[in-house]
Amino acid sequence: MTYMAPIKEVLFVMKELAGLECLSTFAGFEDANLDTAQAVLEESAKLCGEVLAPLNVEGDRNPSSWKDGTVTTTPGFKEAFRQFAEGGWQGVQHPIGYEGQGLPKLIATPCVEMLNASNLSFALCPLLTDGAIEALLTAGTETQKQRFVPKLISGEWTGTMNLTEPQAGSDLSTVRSRAEPQVDGSYKLFGTKIFITWGEHDMAKNIVHLVLARTPDAPEGVKGISLFVVPKFHVNDDGSLGERNDVHCVSIEHKLGIKASPTAVLQFGDHGGAIGHLIGEENRGLEYMFIMMNAARFAVGLQGIAVSDRAYQKAVEFAKERVQSRPVDGSANHAVAIIAHPNVRRMLSTMRALTEASRSLAYVAAAHCDHAHRHPDAAMRAEHQAIYEYLVPVVKGWSTELSIDVTSLGVQVHGDMGFIEETGAAQYYRDARILPIYEGTTAIQANDLVSRKTVRDGGKVAKALLAGVAETIEGLCAEPSAAFVPMKKYLTQGHNSLGAVVDFIVTNMKSDPNAVFAGSVPYLKLAGIVFGGWQLARALLVATAKHDEDPFFYRAKIGSAQFYAEHVLPLASALEASITTAKGGESLLALSRDQF
Amino acid sequence: MTYMAPIKEVLFVMKELAGLECLSTFAGFEDANLDTAQAVLEESAKLCGEVLAPLNVEGDRNPSSWKDGTVTTTPGFKEAFRQFAEGGWQGVQHPIGYEGQGLPKLIATPCVEMLNASNLSFALCPLLTDGAIEALLTAGTETQKQRFVPKLISGEWTGTMNLTEPQAGSDLSTVRSRAEPQVDGSYKLFGTKIFITWGEHDMAKNIVHLVLARTPDAPEGVKGISLFVVPKFHVNDDGSLGERNDVHCVSIEHKLGIKASPTAVLQFGDHGGAIGHLIGEENRGLEYMFIMMNAARFAVGLQGIAVSDRAYQKAVEFAKERVQSRPVDGSANHAVAIIAHPNVRRMLSTMRALTEASRSLAYVAAAHCDHAHRHPDAAMRAEHQAIYEYLVPVVKGWSTELSIDVTSLGVQVHGDMGFIEETGAAQYYRDARILPIYEGTTAIQANDLVSRKTVRDGGKVAKALLAGVAETIEGLCAEPSAAFVPMKKYLTQGHNSLGAVVDFIVTNMKSDPNAVFAGSVPYLKLAGIVFGGWQLARALLVATAKHDEDPFFYRAKIGSAQFYAEHVLPLASALEASITTAKGGESLLALSRDQF
Repeated sequence: MTYMAPIKEVLFVMKELAGLECLSTFAGFEDANLDTAQAVLEESAKLCGEVLAPLNVEGDRNPSSWKDGTVTTTPGFKEAFRQFAEGGWQGVQHPIGYEGQGLPKLIATPCVEMLNASNLSFALCPLLTDGAIEALLTAGTETQKQRFVPKLISGEWTGTMNLTEPQAGSDLSTVRSRAEPQVDGSYKLFGTKIFITWGEHDMAKNIVHLVLARTPDAPEGVKGISLFVVPKFHVNDDGSLGERNDVHCVSIEHKLGIKASPTAVLQFGDHGGAIGHLIGEENRGLEYMFIMMNAARFAVGLQGIAVSDRAYQKAVEFAKERVQSRPVDGSANHAVAIIAHPNVRRMLSTMRALTEASRSLAYVAAAHCDHAHRHPDAAMRAEHQAIYEYLVPVVKGWSTELSIDVTSLGVQVHGDMGFIEETGAAQYYRDARILPIYEGTTAIQANDLVSRKTVRDGGKVAKALLAGVAETIEGLCAEPSAAFVPMKKYLTQGHNSLGAVVDFIVTNMKSDPNAVFAGSVPYLKLAGIVFGGWQLARALLVATAKHDEDPFFYRAKIGSAQFYAEHVLPLASALEASITTAKGGESLLALSRDQF
Repeated sequence: MTYMAPIKEVLFVMKELAGLECLSTFAGFEDANLDTAQAVLEESAKLCGEVLAPLNVEGDRNPSSWKDGTVTTTPGFKEAFRQFAEGGWQGVQHPIGYEGQGLPKLIATPCVEMLNASNLSFALCPLLTDGAIEALLTAGTETQKQRFVPKLISGEWTGTMNLTEPQAGSDLSTVRSRAEPQVDGSYKLFGTKIFITWGEHDMAKNIVHLVLARTPDAPEGVKGISLFVVPKFHVNDDGSLGERNDVHCVSIEHKLGIKASPTAVLQFGDHGGAIGHLIGEENRGLEYMFIMMNAARFAVGLQGIAVSDRAYQKAVEFAKERVQSRPVDGSANHAVAIIAHPNVRRMLSTMRALTEASRSLAYVAAAHCDHAHRHPDAAMRAEHQAIYEYLVPVVKGWSTELSIDVTSLGVQVHGDMGFIEETGAAQYYRDARILPIYEGTTAIQANDLVSRKTVRDGGKVAKALLAGVAETIEGLCAEPSAAFVPMKKYLTQGHNSLGAVVDFIVTNMKSDPNAVFAGSVPYLKLAGIVFGGWQLARALLVATAKHDEDPFFYRAKIGSAQFYAEHVLPLASALEASITTAKGGESLLALSRDQF
């Protein structure tokens, strides 16, 4: 089966929940209306459905392979990347001044989702290139921008992020790679970087590595890290390619999933030093890297939504085709397609409701990002930026954790067939497993949410979002239909639980940090469940009001919201209990390490 | 890392929760005391830790392979199976009269757990052989028993269960394989069976296939299925092997996990007919198969517990070795082993508490099975049998669903390294994925729990178990220690939720079967959470009373119970809500199939 981009669903979210039309009032976004969005999405859907989706299985069966320092990608990937590049898809959200299309993040977001749904391994290459572009635009000189960004946007070159080293996983304070200044202003880099996604491949003429390293007199810890651009091939002043640089791929990993995407070990400077150039100021590398990481984290959240939707589509197709067992209510005396069985519906509805909720929240976050950049009022920009920054770890952490459950249900719907690799459902389950790990594990997202996004402002942004939830609850209360009953009840409970947890975190952070951090991941999940449920509640209101315009579509939206209210939102109270009951983190921390 | 059998933990459960000493008062179980158990477990631990556990990774990297109808197992498996057979491990729970050891199921249970923890693929072969032995003992003639059972117990031969056909997954009513009676009283079998675990291999001299098929005049549906024994090689009257039978392995599957275990497609009768013999009476095959399926389902539940424990052990080892980041509470200004970080502790504690709870429940169920067979009082035997039968789908469904979460957390604890196949954590995640599927999916377990185990007796057994929970809660209430506070609160809530759900199911089954079956899996999980929590509450009482005898051990037990009360039991209310709020199953069933 190929992949059907959910265009109608996505346009609904963009218009009704994320306020696309409002964006077109901002300077520079005049064309960002629904028609533009629809045209872009339809083109994207073609490339994704026709070219990239069919290559997804191929990438799993014939992973990219390494030999003598070079990586050969899965057959078909090179040509597909050429089509991706020629279509201008790398540039959707990047500035027109550097050959991008300058569209809002809200329009780029469904393109990224579709790309990842069709082929997670393939989509990682543009995802990392986006990060490199962001970093260069943020901190590069104009010369650096002009030298690298248009070529990255055109797809002639691709980009990477080089953070991790063998001794330093998530903890960048221990980065050891060295950068030695040269008389010409360049640097020579030495060191080993691991887990470099698309760190070496054959799809583009050059690879632009952005690398964290230390200059000789840099302070210890995270305050002594600088960011360098180290291209695989040197770039001459006229933009043409020069000599091969001293950065080499010494191996790629043998992974559980996303096998077509080469995960490289890169060796810098084994033959005299890899020539790099400083980006921005010395010792501010982590700060710049956080900018690209925020973009990348948001995009990884979209990966979770994407693989969930793909797994859902596959499971639905199977459930409609597979005939087995009579209906439990005795309504037929012959075997029926399994989609008729209540438990299969429960699984499919769970997959669907979680995907819709996490998608809606991510798209709303994207719109906040657009407001943060383009709103005419500076105070409003700051407010939206704060909301966006709060939501990034939630989108990343929650959507990716969900994707594990959703792809697992996808396997389960297939029964025995799901365990057979040829069926294809298992690939999503394997591919998804990296998502809560890379670009910062769920725990790292949760710690960010607790520290920088909740405690630092005393819970202000969280409470502002909760006020929005309360407003929606008021709207629900004005509706008499039975479909609203569970949403009123459980969104209210969720709102109260999340409020209580935010208070708990802000109050106890100083006196009992272990208890707070023991509950950080449950807090992140709780925030996702409540704010995701909020979006479905808003969708429920719209779908009810517009029901008669398109009953087939809106009835399904009402069903999803109701299902989510009944089956997902009740978890909020349980999460609150697990965070606040465990005050003191006693059951966690009382044991010695030897008692584990 | 190899596998360390949790002998102390297992003995605690057997003695304090499952009442091993009581079993030794039953005729035939005189030797089934703690000393015997300990001696058996220590021997089992040696074989599992030294021989089978090291072969587990090997089986994943070099799966069993098929060529021209024969299957070559992973290097080392054949010799390991010889050691397993010579140790008498196939016979632990089987009758002395057929060369078994005649020990209680409660002592066999940890042996099965250890075998599976060390090597899930390997352990499936004895698991299926156990099923074949059970079926033969139940329904075979004395001649059939004498012919097959001692050879199966000695490990000279192995057994299989042949149910599934290409058109019939879980729905056995559509079985099409034919059995034509011959003048000599034998039958000729024709048909294709798929997903036959260890259906062909090179570890034993013969394979005893138990096969479901239809005789020519059999009624349609499940009432026309008979059970046949069809050995790979004919067996002469003196027990020696004769000609090759007409059953052939035409392929094996390419699977997500348990790769060393060959999953065969078997073709019966393509060269004139596979000679088989009827087991028991014609048309009662499904009944006999259910006997072996109940044993197999319980054992698959143990597989879930086993792979969870193995994943936990691996994650703990990594968390103690991996040094990264400073403590969040500022207690050190250098990076520490990640086991010090609250979120890593939360993950490890979750893995541990779920494993302990599901293990405790399974072992208690095993003891009920022993009572059902050996209690001197017939009424008591019937009572214990009913409890055991209620618990089998819970043990199977809940323990295996948990194993997905636990092995997924195991990957997460390893971070990036978890996604690299060489690390080994990913294998458990892949292997575990089959467990909620085979021997009846979780939905099938849940439907069994709802229909045959709850509605049929009007909730009587469920309520009897809940009365036991209430009694334990009374015991908790007499304890003043703070460690009891969350358990009192959330076990009480769980007790009430489960009681309400049982009432809901019994009340609504007739009028609204779709709503009931839509909640069947949540009901199964709820039962697991509450009855598993009950066992940890009992453990908490014992550990508190005996604390000073062995503070290191009992403090850890108290910690597990407290963690479970705070982090797992609160889910009970959410499950109740998702079952009972969705009355009418409206959000599930209102949509047409095209709306999915």
